[in-house]
Amino acid sequence: MHPPDGLLDAVDAYEHALMANDLEALDAFFAEGDTTMRGDAAGLLVGHDRISRFRQGRGGAPRREITSVEVRTIDDDHALVVSVLAPPAGGRGQQTQLWRRGASGWVIDAAHVSGPARAIDPSVWRGVGTPPVVGEPGGALVGRRVAVKDLFDVAGHEVGAGVPAFLAESPRATASAPAVGALLAAGADVQGIARTDEFAYSIAGRNPHYGTPPNPAVVGGIPGGSSNGPASAVALGQADIGLGTDTGGSIRVPASYQGLWGLRTTHGAVDRSGLLPLAPSFDTVGWLTRDSATLAMAASVSLPMGDPDAVQLRRFAVCDAVTALADADVRAAFDDALAGLGGLLDDLERVELPDVDVLFEAFRTVQAAEAWRAHGDWISAHPGALGADIAGRFAWASGFGTDEEEAARAVVLAARVEIERALDRRVLLLPAASSAAPQATMGAAENEETRARTLRLTCIAGIAGMPALSVPLLRVAKGPVGLCLVGPRGSDLRLIEVGERMTHPRG
Amino acid sequence: MHPPDGLLDAVDAYEHALMANDLEALDAFFAEGDTTMRGDAAGLLVGHDRISRFRQGRGGAPRREITSVEVRTIDDDHALVVSVLAPPAGGRGQQTQLWRRGASGWVIDAAHVSGPARAIDPSVWRGVGTPPVVGEPGGALVGRRVAVKDLFDVAGHEVGAGVPAFLAESPRATASAPAVGALLAAGADVQGIARTDEFAYSIAGRNPHYGTPPNPAVVGGIPGGSSNGPASAVALGQADIGLGTDTGGSIRVPASYQGLWGLRTTHGAVDRSGLLPLAPSFDTVGWLTRDSATLAMAASVSLPMGDPDAVQLRRFAVCDAVTALADADVRAAFDDALAGLGGLLDDLERVELPDVDVLFEAFRTVQAAEAWRAHGDWISAHPGALGADIAGRFAWASGFGTDEEEAARAVVLAARVEIERALDRRVLLLPAASSAAPQATMGAAENEETRARTLRLTCIAGIAGMPALSVPLLRVAKGPVGLCLVGPRGSDLRLIEVGERMTHPRG
Repeated sequence: MHPPDGLLDAVDAYEHALMANDLEALDAFFAEGDTTMRGDAAGLLVGHDRISRFRQGRGGAPRREITSVEVRTIDDDHALVVSVLAPPAGGRGQQTQLWRRGASGWVIDAAHVSGPARAIDPSVWRGVGTPPVVGEPGGALVGRRVAVKDLFDVAGHEVGAGVPAFLAESPRATASAPAVGALLAAGADVQGIARTDEFAYSIAGRNPHYGTPPNPAVVGGIPGGSSNGPASAVALGQADIGLGTDTGGSIRVPASYQGLWGLRTTHGAVDRSGLLPLAPSFDTVGWLTRDSATLAMAASVSLPMGDPDAVQLRRFAVCDAVTALADADVRAAFDDALAGLGGLLDDLERVELPDVDVLFEAFRTVQAAEAWRAHGDWISAHPGALGADIAGRFAWASGFGTDEEEAARAVVLAARVEIERALDRRVLLLPAASSAAPQATMGAAENEETRARTLRLTCIAGIAGMPALSVPLLRVAKGPVGLCLVGPRGSDLRLIEVGERMTHPRG
Repeated sequence: MHPPDGLLDAVDAYEHALMANDLEALDAFFAEGDTTMRGDAAGLLVGHDRISRFRQGRGGAPRREITSVEVRTIDDDHALVVSVLAPPAGGRGQQTQLWRRGASGWVIDAAHVSGPARAIDPSVWRGVGTPPVVGEPGGALVGRRVAVKDLFDVAGHEVGAGVPAFLAESPRATASAPAVGALLAAGADVQGIARTDEFAYSIAGRNPHYGTPPNPAVVGGIPGGSSNGPASAVALGQADIGLGTDTGGSIRVPASYQGLWGLRTTHGAVDRSGLLPLAPSFDTVGWLTRDSATLAMAASVSLPMGDPDAVQLRRFAVCDAVTALADADVRAAFDDALAGLGGLLDDLERVELPDVDVLFEAFRTVQAAEAWRAHGDWISAHPGALGADIAGRFAWASGFGTDEEEAARAVVLAARVEIERALDRRVLLLPAASSAAPQATMGAAENEETRARTLRLTCIAGIAGMPALSVPLLRVAKGPVGLCLVGPRGSDLRLIEVGERMTHPRG
């Protein structure tokens, strides 16, 4: 069957507009309305306007040539056009388009584009191998692949901390950090070294040097940080365990944004030697996984003490002032989830916690003072090494005097006691983040506002030194959100068991 | 608009058949005939039977769940169905299908499937980084990424030679091989270490341990070897320069099969220290690229002598007995190409060369004896370390006595003189391989027959120690084929210039 009149001219004209990045012409080529589709490796966009916004943000399509075109004519006004794409940069791709003759000419109702695979996604990984470090034979984790956050020593590799200038001066580690070694000893392989926000001092996951890793759970959403590389690697199926750190939410936030399980361990429970510090009073090791069983295995082989006080966790708490920090849709999903857990939450009590603004202020002051103590000398000696956001944060962090730090530390210590007393070994339930993953295109003000509310949620466990688990149980229109469980210190493994019960409330 | 009657049931039934790998049902779901299409990362298959054969060979589709389905009804009998796929192993994919109501129910006219990206393609790479080894600042090759065949020392890494047991015992190199160092000094970065056939003793490119790298130029075709990893990396756009070796065709064959430029250098012209040998009498260093300019730069920074006798190459030769070794379609394309080169080939002479069977027999005997000398002890000490094919080849290679080797060596030395005299500094033109890339599904007999004819073509340069360039100038129905130029020893750079002129015969 011959292609319908004018179709091939339209296909040519579209290609020309695409290569010229003629946004007006491209908008006109995609059908108006809410049902027009465009999908690629980053996900499926539905609706003309979402597609248009995506195109505005990407700065043009990669160069390509079309090596063959197959047209399947459906009727005089519809045809499917499949093009084989040959980018001059190598590889091969495919584009499938459903064309329709509209009132003013041919338009695209749906497009599906796939391009060549890259050797490595530099926003997710610093390096990957097959694997570069092989685990011990036998053991619970044989065959599992670990994405190691670029803060941990891995034998034979440098630590980069998300900062190219730091990496360039970093010595090659002669031994792996104990947190890495525990996973290797249990049989897991290191799949590669994964990205972090600069010096892990962010919860956004947007590294200015290496790019923003994709969040496969939210088309166009930020991944969450600072364990963004391990989190995205696990969510993308490029690793099974993300080995990360959590100072102020760096495991719980990416877990929440990407629909993963994420555990921040009890402060001090996992050996932190061989780990670049951010703020030692709050720094913890933890893991991100797609399923609870893998998380339970990673945790149990890494916590040498097990749960020192292995009492089942059956008593829960919520704090309304804390929950109120979340967006309305998240609060609704949180309330629904709690209602759905029924008998599991028979013993649920409303508790009062110290004022979250006071907590957050004290937390971030101590964090800032310690972060500057850890990295200030290096940063001062390397002007321009950091992107503007984190450079600004460290500049602010450099300004605290000893008196301010000590005052904040006193607040933290008092709050720790107060939180412990208020919870009385109950598991505090709260949203793991104040919202689903914001879009990467959000402005600085929205970013700061979201961050401020999320950090008020996450700093509670940080201050109390308690383990905190993000369970992928909530969902709002914009994507997944974690249900966070903050347990008594030392209850790490029990907390995972509770999380598992929550995902199978009738089991 | 409601989906047409029965469509969603058909979509469900198809998914069920796919997950059950019910080949009969899947064949029935795809429309009969030559225009049915199915495309994925490996390329576009057109025709029901090609799709059916593909499905028979793959052993089932990866597990997946469908998280959302969008239906765009075209008319009562046609609809586009777009599904977002969520594999339990992580990541996200998309499937676009054009469904049509046929006489016996709904069938698929076209499908486009894209799955999650992998962290690394283990058939192409042993490891990749961003980059793992950074080139010197400045220089002609800044920004170019090198795929290093896993035979060269790279500082800080082991040599694996395509054999896991060899890799496991390999020491970490303290310095990079000079062939690697020359590219680094010119500014290129090492993108990663790429696969090779076991000990480079094959031209097929099918490593039994790590898989067969894709050939993006021929859907389902083998990549050619033994520099298969570097070649596929370059063809896929995952690197810009493939650093390889060519003993009996290991650069020219993958270049030919994948439509790349490939240069085997004059024997001895590039330092081979830090390179694991196969057969030192024939081993050479060379490069694979997508364009001639990159090849010329890689060659010129790596050949310290330049062209010692820089006479322009304007005199050419063909040998009918050699050309006759190629398939009929390749011969026809070769003749057409020569006719198309017009004035460039004003001085083209038909020459006689020594009998190719005699050449090949002598070549492969010396190669075998040297290969066994290089690796026999290790192989004897590691039974089972090699796949059946290469293990068999080495077993055969172990059987030559000193007399046989010396007799063959005498034939090689005499033939070298004869070839040199017959060519009289002319450039010999011949097909770079006897065929386009065979399908990976070919049987052992066809494999052996194709290999035998291709090696008779490629051994001429090996015996003569001459440089040989494969230029992506020929095309047959099954894919690209290289036009091979064998020049006088030391004419490496001039040969690339001639190749460039051939691709722009009017320029």
